[in-house]
Amino acid sequence: MDAGKIKVRPAIDLAQALFSPRSVALVGASGDEAKNTARPQRYLAKYGYAGKIFPVNATRPSILGLRAYKNLQEIKAKTDHAFIMVGDVEQALEDCGEAGVPVATVFTDGFADAGTEGQARQARLVARARALGVRLLGPNSMGMINLAGRCPITVNAVLAMDILPAGATSIVSQSGTLLGTVLSRGAARGLGFAKLVSVGNEADIGVGEIVEMLAADPDTQTILLFLETVRDAATLERAARAAHAAGKPVVAYKLGRSALGQRLARSHTGALAGEDAALDAYFRDCGIVRVDMLETLIEIGPLLAGRRPPDLARAPRVGVVTTTGGGAASVVDRLGTHGIEAASPDGQSPIIDLTMGKKAATYGAVVQELLAFTGCDAVLAVVGSSAQFDPQHAVEPIVKAHSSTRPGAKPLAVFMTPQADQSLALLAQAGIAAFRTPEACADALHAYFSWRTPRQVPGGAAIPWPKELPLKGKLNEEQGLHLFKTLGVPVVETAIARAPDYAHPLPYPVALKILSAEVTHKSEMGGVVLGITSRRDFESKAKSLAKKGEPLLVQRMAQGLAEAIVGYRDDPVVGPLVMVGAGGIFAELYNDVVIRLAPVGEAEALEMIGQVKGFEVLRGYRGRPPGDLAALARSVAALSRLALIKGRPVREAEANPVMVGATGAVAVDALVLLDEQVRER
Amino acid sequence: MDAGKIKVRPAIDLAQALFSPRSVALVGASGDEAKNTARPQRYLAKYGYAGKIFPVNATRPSILGLRAYKNLQEIKAKTDHAFIMVGDVEQALEDCGEAGVPVATVFTDGFADAGTEGQARQARLVARARALGVRLLGPNSMGMINLAGRCPITVNAVLAMDILPAGATSIVSQSGTLLGTVLSRGAARGLGFAKLVSVGNEADIGVGEIVEMLAADPDTQTILLFLETVRDAATLERAARAAHAAGKPVVAYKLGRSALGQRLARSHTGALAGEDAALDAYFRDCGIVRVDMLETLIEIGPLLAGRRPPDLARAPRVGVVTTTGGGAASVVDRLGTHGIEAASPDGQSPIIDLTMGKKAATYGAVVQELLAFTGCDAVLAVVGSSAQFDPQHAVEPIVKAHSSTRPGAKPLAVFMTPQADQSLALLAQAGIAAFRTPEACADALHAYFSWRTPRQVPGGAAIPWPKELPLKGKLNEEQGLHLFKTLGVPVVETAIARAPDYAHPLPYPVALKILSAEVTHKSEMGGVVLGITSRRDFESKAKSLAKKGEPLLVQRMAQGLAEAIVGYRDDPVVGPLVMVGAGGIFAELYNDVVIRLAPVGEAEALEMIGQVKGFEVLRGYRGRPPGDLAALARSVAALSRLALIKGRPVREAEANPVMVGATGAVAVDALVLLDEQVRER
Repeated sequence: MDAGKIKVRPAIDLAQALFSPRSVALVGASGDEAKNTARPQRYLAKYGYAGKIFPVNATRPSILGLRAYKNLQEIKAKTDHAFIMVGDVEQALEDCGEAGVPVATVFTDGFADAGTEGQARQARLVARARALGVRLLGPNSMGMINLAGRCPITVNAVLAMDILPAGATSIVSQSGTLLGTVLSRGAARGLGFAKLVSVGNEADIGVGEIVEMLAADPDTQTILLFLETVRDAATLERAARAAHAAGKPVVAYKLGRSALGQRLARSHTGALAGEDAALDAYFRDCGIVRVDMLETLIEIGPLLAGRRPPDLARAPRVGVVTTTGGGAASVVDRLGTHGIEAASPDGQSPIIDLTMGKKAATYGAVVQELLAFTGCDAVLAVVGSSAQFDPQHAVEPIVKAHSSTRPGAKPLAVFMTPQADQSLALLAQAGIAAFRTPEACADALHAYFSWRTPRQVPGGAAIPWPKELPLKGKLNEEQGLHLFKTLGVPVVETAIARAPDYAHPLPYPVALKILSAEVTHKSEMGGVVLGITSRRDFESKAKSLAKKGEPLLVQRMAQGLAEAIVGYRDDPVVGPLVMVGAGGIFAELYNDVVIRLAPVGEAEALEMIGQVKGFEVLRGYRGRPPGDLAALARSVAALSRLALIKGRPVREAEANPVMVGATGAVAVDALVLLDEQVRER
Repeated sequence: MDAGKIKVRPAIDLAQALFSPRSVALVGASGDEAKNTARPQRYLAKYGYAGKIFPVNATRPSILGLRAYKNLQEIKAKTDHAFIMVGDVEQALEDCGEAGVPVATVFTDGFADAGTEGQARQARLVARARALGVRLLGPNSMGMINLAGRCPITVNAVLAMDILPAGATSIVSQSGTLLGTVLSRGAARGLGFAKLVSVGNEADIGVGEIVEMLAADPDTQTILLFLETVRDAATLERAARAAHAAGKPVVAYKLGRSALGQRLARSHTGALAGEDAALDAYFRDCGIVRVDMLETLIEIGPLLAGRRPPDLARAPRVGVVTTTGGGAASVVDRLGTHGIEAASPDGQSPIIDLTMGKKAATYGAVVQELLAFTGCDAVLAVVGSSAQFDPQHAVEPIVKAHSSTRPGAKPLAVFMTPQADQSLALLAQAGIAAFRTPEACADALHAYFSWRTPRQVPGGAAIPWPKELPLKGKLNEEQGLHLFKTLGVPVVETAIARAPDYAHPLPYPVALKILSAEVTHKSEMGGVVLGITSRRDFESKAKSLAKKGEPLLVQRMAQGLAEAIVGYRDDPVVGPLVMVGAGGIFAELYNDVVIRLAPVGEAEALEMIGQVKGFEVLRGYRGRPPGDLAALARSVAALSRLALIKGRPVREAEANPVMVGATGAVAVDALVLLDEQVRER
């Protein structure tokens, strides 16, 4: 057999075997109820699983009332899904192969989660699974829970709770514990879920492939992701696009916002967490909604279900009705920090503050009015103490108003200030997004408004590598500028001046630089002389710079209104990225840059530029002359085409500075690292 | 009687009458249980209030089984506290005065909460109350709840819940609804409270005065504030210092972080919300802990109770133990964004990740080890699904470990990933801070570490206003620089040059500026010429600048390594503030400034400077020469002494730029607005 090839089975088969198998083998099932390994069989029975259950245990004739099998081969009926809980995963896998089991979920850990040796063990396991034609979920997976299909294949203790309600939201998690978090917290407030998958180490089936299956799953309307890392960005992007096409929002909560979190994720998952700003760009460009808070992930479902990305071109506006001024302010204040505005039909006070004394009809009428009000993009309803004791005052009118509007209309978010579990459940039942905290409520509305349609990738055939340039190491500045120029980035007029007389054709003033690929911070090393105005001055400067008579780089002095920096990086986690920022040390100190997946078109580049604060100085700030930001956008788009070069040899590139003038923008410096070079670092 | 004087009663009397009256009159009490106005009497009875209740209702002989009085005078016994629910508050107040009632809580609204007319009505009410010697809580107050003392004097519907548990945390709120939020959410997880006060419009008794009473209250160990504005910063500061002296932490959640929130607070309370950065400085300098999230306010109590501000000089470190990697990461990642580090005794992985299988002793032993570990400043314990079903695995060991450490030791915070109400209650009972969300948990730890001892106000007698300067309007630049100089701010050498020959004593190069108090942005208006190197050049520039032969300001050209901006503002909400930031337009764009209450000493000024990112360029950034930040600190401290000038005539002042050199720092421009001028804007 060929160990490198995957025996492809159609996706629909995989989804069925994974989520709705006709039969499940529990390899390592125990009859001792105190053990984890007894749980899957108990849970399947508890949920009334309609298929066949085959406990596999070499030492017992029966487990919890069912006949037990010595191994998978002994089962004569067809087994769709094996749940492996034994230490000898390798033997169990061989048995799966022999018995023709198409999917195995591996609960056992000790693979990529356990250092270098574990990683090697995992690589061998995957290779063997591919050879045998067995697809793997895990290892180190807590399993899969299909609530609507009454098929929990898991050791997750959360199923000890009363039967959990089914809903239309599914979740894919890199943390098994989190499934319990979502289910238990959801159940406490009437939120149900469809399918929950713990992907473990993602040795074979990863987050992206599961999202693809969920995009095609009729029981799933919204897809949630709990991520510590992204292991296969391309597949997840494809899946997110499929979900978008199917009208199913995908929402991500991802750890690793801080360097500490990234370090932790790495030690915990054995994978790079990825730079947070890059992930942000990735999610946005894939049309994935990113939430900031864990509870938002649990609560946001109904706010998004059935909706499309709003893609607003102006500041979003929320219509607000409340029975408590302080309660509403706690959400609205936070919305304000995200640049979201409040709008009311009377145009006077930003919110509609009802008092408790008014009759029930009033609250509902205002909600209805706001849902119809064209001046706002979403409605926020805040309820005070009546949510706890008197749902008829405000909560029930909200439900009524919502039910009388057409589905998919303006999103409605409800925040209730007191402990109000019954009202939360009432709203959940009605499919209305309800929030326990003002912060999660604001986070959800902010996430909704930030939601974008998956980006249009600019077309363009693969670009060949200029044959005159080396394909190894680091390009020197002239080579780098040459590469940029071939992509369409305007660069400053440049010449090479050689010993002994250092003649060059450029008019003065000029700049003079040593031409070494080794010195990245040339100016700090004294390798740059700016503003040389005469031939005489030039010669003396050239001689003192080129101590060994080496060739020098001469450039016309470029004038600009301000400096920009344009960068490119082939990120190990999310792939090619393009970056634009204000130039100079202050922009560096304040990290004032905007990142997107590369390549980008000019319109997108212009949008990026619009988000760079430092470019205020080019937008007429305090009477300054405006700069040619359209030209800068063209350069950003052109440089981002590095992503289209055949084989993607460029690991990192930077035009710094790009001088932005009243007309035009030119790159005056180039740094290009090729793949190999960076790998060495 | 003199309407302007307060009849002072000793504070202890006020506290007793307010919180623990021997008798309460309910003015406007109703016998109709559906009405708000029936609630106070029902709640007092429900809680077993031990004092006397006097319902006052002109139309009924009895209310809910108690004899009703036509008015307060009819009550022959002494009334300690009147709760006024009638429209004619003015008459009720007169009756209080006549009957010698020392405190009246006014539930009725329609005062400062209701526009200009209401404000005038409130001013008349307060004046009359002062004349009568009656202290007022409210108007527009939901009342006061003394749980430990079984004395709820309130219409707040939250008391319809089962008897609420008493605890050692008190809360003062500008939102009445919020008391219900805190009580109901607290009760659901076993958190009790001591005294809860809705201050309403704070016409007389304000937040500060209540905090002073709570600082002296034996039932209160921690004081929480829910604020939309600060109406009397000086009193609250005094109260916060008293609470600090009594070892009682004060925690604030304040709305108005965004401009939208500030606008809302203004429309909702009729008062300025105050600029958020100024409030931040104020809270910090008063020793008040500020939390970012509403739930943190409810949950943080046990984390702070009995502790002092940590006043750490380095990055804080947290020791972390968990049974779920993803759960711990959700808190730790967020701590990382606040610059908080994770530290473990083995120095290897940042956190201690236990697996569920281990025996109960392990979790407790690790918690104990971390509580004793000198390498961390706080302990974070994260618990996964066992918190829901098997508290004996981790939650009970946490309680045990905590109880065996001395009180007041290292703070311990617990985050549990599942819905785990019983475990939350178990921890609450043990006085351990437990958090429902990773975000509130991280927010609480961050707030704890940001907690500072109330600032030492630098001593110094009142400074007289220099008699040679006008006391009205705006100072011109020479006058401004003169004022700065008298305070001890080094300023650039300056002279006045007059027509016809514009002679001056300064060596070249010099700068030349028009000398008008009216032009604040002189350079943008073409009123500044820099770098004049000769007498001849000077004369021609002077003549073209001074079109009508007016005097001009001449200054030596000051060189520096970087520019700074030092500012002062007498804020209408929190009083005098001093600000330092990096100079230049980028620092302005990025709002890279640090604010503190003024005056500050040099050490504090240096600490402020340390937090300005842009000053990296003066701290040896990329090989640049270091600047004299100590000299800048002296200038900041000196300028902040504007707060000590008799009568505080300066409303705003700015030295911009201050040129910071390798040695020394000099102010080269001065802008000074006196009080009246700013009022006109």
